Amino acid sequence: MTDQAKAEQIVDSYLCCLSEGDLEGVVALYADDATVEDPVGSEPITGRAAIAEFYRGALAMGIKLRRSGAVRLAAGEIVFPFVCASEAMGAPMEIEIIDHFVLNAEGKVQSMRAFWSEANIRPMAAEA
Amino acid sequence: MTDQAKAEQIVDSYLCCLSEGDLEGVVALYADDATVEDPVGSEPITGRAAIAEFYRGALAMGIKLRRSGAVRLAAGEIVFPFVCASEAMGAPMEIEIIDHFVLNAEGKVQSMRAFWSEANIRPMAAEA
Repeated sequence: MTDQAKAEQIVDSYLCCLSEGDLEGVVALYADDATVEDPVGSEPITGRAAIAEFYRGALAMGIKLRRSGAVRLAAGEIVFPFVCASEAMGAPMEIEIIDHFVLNAEGKVQSMRAFWSEANIRPMAAEA
Repeated sequence: MTDQAKAEQIVDSYLCCLSEGDLEGVVALYADDATVEDPVGSEPITGRAAIAEFYRGALAMGIKLRRSGAVRLAAGEIVFPFVCASEAMGAPMEIEIIDHFVLNAEGKVQSMRAFWSEANIRPMAAEA
């Protein structure tokens, strides 16, 4: 498998596990001492236990994620654009996000940073 | 002007100047001691003179750039997806790239990192 194919597999597993509510599957992508900064500028959280807690909150919102462009891989770092849809706030909405993963030697995510702000949130026009 | 609007202005100026061959316009977006790492994993170059030299080479290839998704701004950092088209290699091709800009207090680009690899290069199907 090429490095690109491996990177796409990690990204698609991430989006799929989050969309299907598979908390263990998401956490398994991370290194034991990984950090998550979501959104960029917030205090990073560290370690699988804290990361599981973070995603438990996200999954409770019934989010659905879909990739919206190519996975870019360079020197063990991955960035990719995606859309996160949720109905948790009463009205359906979407957030346009770009995630940045730094992989460790074992191919686990050592660092995740999510780039988005309120300016990237939009109401959903219609049912998909 | 909102921070988001300022970020979009920086990004659109960058893409427009590169597409129009406006070297001075591109370099003016950068801080004096800025760094450029393109692609991620290559040796970063530092300072406006070296950056101008780098873009002079890129502009010689007659590149045309267009944004392919929303500008994500968080805590003074910007990421955005775009497509870089070129005919310099004989056959028209496109590269799917995500750039990461870190802004300084004056709103100049202090650090640029470009995420792409050969896996993101594709032949162009037809004339635009």
